[in-house]
Amino acid sequence: MEIGSVLIMLVVLLALARLGSWLFQRFGLTGLIGEILVGIVIANISIGDWSFLDMFDIFWDPVPESDVYVPIPSSENYDVIELFSELGAIFLLFGVGLETRVKSLMSVGKAAMFVAVLGVIVPFVLGFVLILFYDGNTNHAMFLGAAMVATSVGITARVIKDMKVLHTIESRIIIAAAVIDDVLGMVVLAIVIGAAKSTSMMDIAMITIIAAIFVLGMIAVALWVVPWLYDFFLRRNLNKKVSGEEPAEVKEAEDHVGKLILAIVVCLGISWFADSIGLAAIIGAFLGGMLFADYATEWNLEERIEPITVLFLSFFFVHVGMQVNIEDCLEPSVLILSAIVIVLAVISKYVGCNFGARLGDKSLDKRSRKIIGIGMIPRGEVGIIVAAIGLSSGAMSSQLYAVVVIMAVATTIIAPPLLQRAFREKYPGGCPGSEECEY
Amino acid sequence: MEIGSVLIMLVVLLALARLGSWLFQRFGLTGLIGEILVGIVIANISIGDWSFLDMFDIFWDPVPESDVYVPIPSSENYDVIELFSELGAIFLLFGVGLETRVKSLMSVGKAAMFVAVLGVIVPFVLGFVLILFYDGNTNHAMFLGAAMVATSVGITARVIKDMKVLHTIESRIIIAAAVIDDVLGMVVLAIVIGAAKSTSMMDIAMITIIAAIFVLGMIAVALWVVPWLYDFFLRRNLNKKVSGEEPAEVKEAEDHVGKLILAIVVCLGISWFADSIGLAAIIGAFLGGMLFADYATEWNLEERIEPITVLFLSFFFVHVGMQVNIEDCLEPSVLILSAIVIVLAVISKYVGCNFGARLGDKSLDKRSRKIIGIGMIPRGEVGIIVAAIGLSSGAMSSQLYAVVVIMAVATTIIAPPLLQRAFREKYPGGCPGSEECEY
Repeated sequence: MEIGSVLIMLVVLLALARLGSWLFQRFGLTGLIGEILVGIVIANISIGDWSFLDMFDIFWDPVPESDVYVPIPSSENYDVIELFSELGAIFLLFGVGLETRVKSLMSVGKAAMFVAVLGVIVPFVLGFVLILFYDGNTNHAMFLGAAMVATSVGITARVIKDMKVLHTIESRIIIAAAVIDDVLGMVVLAIVIGAAKSTSMMDIAMITIIAAIFVLGMIAVALWVVPWLYDFFLRRNLNKKVSGEEPAEVKEAEDHVGKLILAIVVCLGISWFADSIGLAAIIGAFLGGMLFADYATEWNLEERIEPITVLFLSFFFVHVGMQVNIEDCLEPSVLILSAIVIVLAVISKYVGCNFGARLGDKSLDKRSRKIIGIGMIPRGEVGIIVAAIGLSSGAMSSQLYAVVVIMAVATTIIAPPLLQRAFREKYPGGCPGSEECEY
Repeated sequence: MEIGSVLIMLVVLLALARLGSWLFQRFGLTGLIGEILVGIVIANISIGDWSFLDMFDIFWDPVPESDVYVPIPSSENYDVIELFSELGAIFLLFGVGLETRVKSLMSVGKAAMFVAVLGVIVPFVLGFVLILFYDGNTNHAMFLGAAMVATSVGITARVIKDMKVLHTIESRIIIAAAVIDDVLGMVVLAIVIGAAKSTSMMDIAMITIIAAIFVLGMIAVALWVVPWLYDFFLRRNLNKKVSGEEPAEVKEAEDHVGKLILAIVVCLGISWFADSIGLAAIIGAFLGGMLFADYATEWNLEERIEPITVLFLSFFFVHVGMQVNIEDCLEPSVLILSAIVIVLAVISKYVGCNFGARLGDKSLDKRSRKIIGIGMIPRGEVGIIVAAIGLSSGAMSSQLYAVVVIMAVATTIIAPPLLQRAFREKYPGGCPGSEECEY
């Protein structure tokens, strides 16, 4: 690996992402759309022989075992973008977890469950039926339905964080629903792969049970184990301080670094574990952050995780944009199908989640349900991953892959401004402070 | 790239490095030695068929074009360690730069120049003569001499930062001398490669001039351009605030992120530039940090860069340790030669820099000169890079490569405890606060 070539790539991407973000904010839009557009430009613009991808030593490979050429970027430098993008999403969700107390999450459990379940069923059924009518291929239909299921909470979380409305009941329902949604999305994917490859129902049941145990286990740890550990070490440290074993000042600076590393290790460790049992790594990161929620302020963790998030997060949005291949999108058949799929993806998620919120919590008014419906719209990278699995297993065509990528990027771009507006409608007096909104 | 496999590697390395650091601190030693030892253990320990390297999907390749098998790690996951290690050193030196005002650096310019020049000449001559007597090969002798030249300021900077003695005159001389030392080291390397490949003196002169212009140019930018830019933007922002164009609160949160990204972009950008003209990237990072030194406190930059450094820095020390291949070190001839080279490397740098300090600044007492001599001892990765160039160009043997790696790691391990003791001798009243020591 050439360090120089990685450094210049990081510099150019960070600077361009910042520029894109700043330009969009000047026009009153969320900056992340600017960052996604920067990714699209980087992956698609070439001037004569020169292109950003050449400059970054990134080249494109055709997908193996597919009849049509679908460019997928590969190279060491692209790996760095991918890793930083993943770390950006992980630390973002960890930060959201830091601000989410498990008790306040559980208080919205019933509503979140309804939102998640209906938000999974409606898009899957609509996507499945659409493609069944479109080309009659059941495998195609199943994979497109599955790709329409999983909400990517990263985008919504960013908007929620930027608007400082993390403690509203709507935000908490969205985030809890996104966790459940991810578990369900994984189950749907397992079923779809199973149906395509005829895996046994036993295997699918196993995966579901493991995922559910993991999520419930983490909640149990946050509720009972962490407070006990904290008290245990606090008492030991107090004893030490009283007996004066170490100079307080040195101890404190050390503690400072030690706590941050502990947080990072837990964050990445649980992300890895979630990934290894087939869940999205960011769901693990969120649950990991939740473990620290009661102590985050005292440990100053939010403030100390933020610079790490800032460093990595721009790569997440740029990476989403880089998935778009303009040439593919300009094929008329792809364009038309994409437009239909985008409309279906937006409406199905909105209607499903809105209706789920109504069933789950009667006290939510129209405006709250609107926020929840919109907040669940972005699909982002999870849908793309599902489509990529379908593509590489031969169960999906490259045109449908392009359609899914366009749908994922489009829902990601559409949702933030709508979500901002919906929040402003519900809270016209400005962003409610975290204290007033703590239910 | 498998995200899961990278995540678990990051988690294990971070946790082990933290454990090593903590254990060594309990015994009153600097934690970074523990982190280096963790690297040595990871690269060398295997239990039956299991090893850390297997676990991390890292495998070892023989060096091309060398007769003896010298393992050099390769694989995507190793690239990540290398990148994080480099970023750790870069952000560490950027942080040191943030606390180094250019004027205070220039006030020690003469002393630093003498320290650097003598600290380069003495080790090179001693290393050259030793190998000339040892095996009579001029190329071997030149490369070993060159590998003994370049001080790796990363280790010293960490000790200085941990002890909070950054503002003492000794620290400032060490850091300024390390910058000059790096330029000179590059010139020596250019001459050595030139002599081995018979490059023209013109090329060597060009490289020297470019490096000198870069360093002096950065100092000029810090002195004149940055204050002007700052005033310009401050005035524009004040005008905006008065005319009330944007709500102050939103603007401030945005500014916060914007300033951090600006700092990161400048840091990585100048590091890249330094790397691209053949200097060490960390020298660019240091000079980049210096640009912000007058505004770092106001912008809260030090505090916000620190978590990023904490995330990456452990990988730097672990990576140094991973360079050591225990089997190579156990060959008797390598062991004996290494012992001699280590003694020479320590003494030559100590004597050269100590004497340079005496010539450059008559007001420095014995204890100050001792600090400076010790502070310049660590060679770290720069010497290893020089040896690797020699190895791949065929101008060095694999045994000598092993010797250089052992020397680099040994000087890195030897220096910190000596440096701590020397600082405590000079400042027995405890770490002098930054205010009192600002000359």
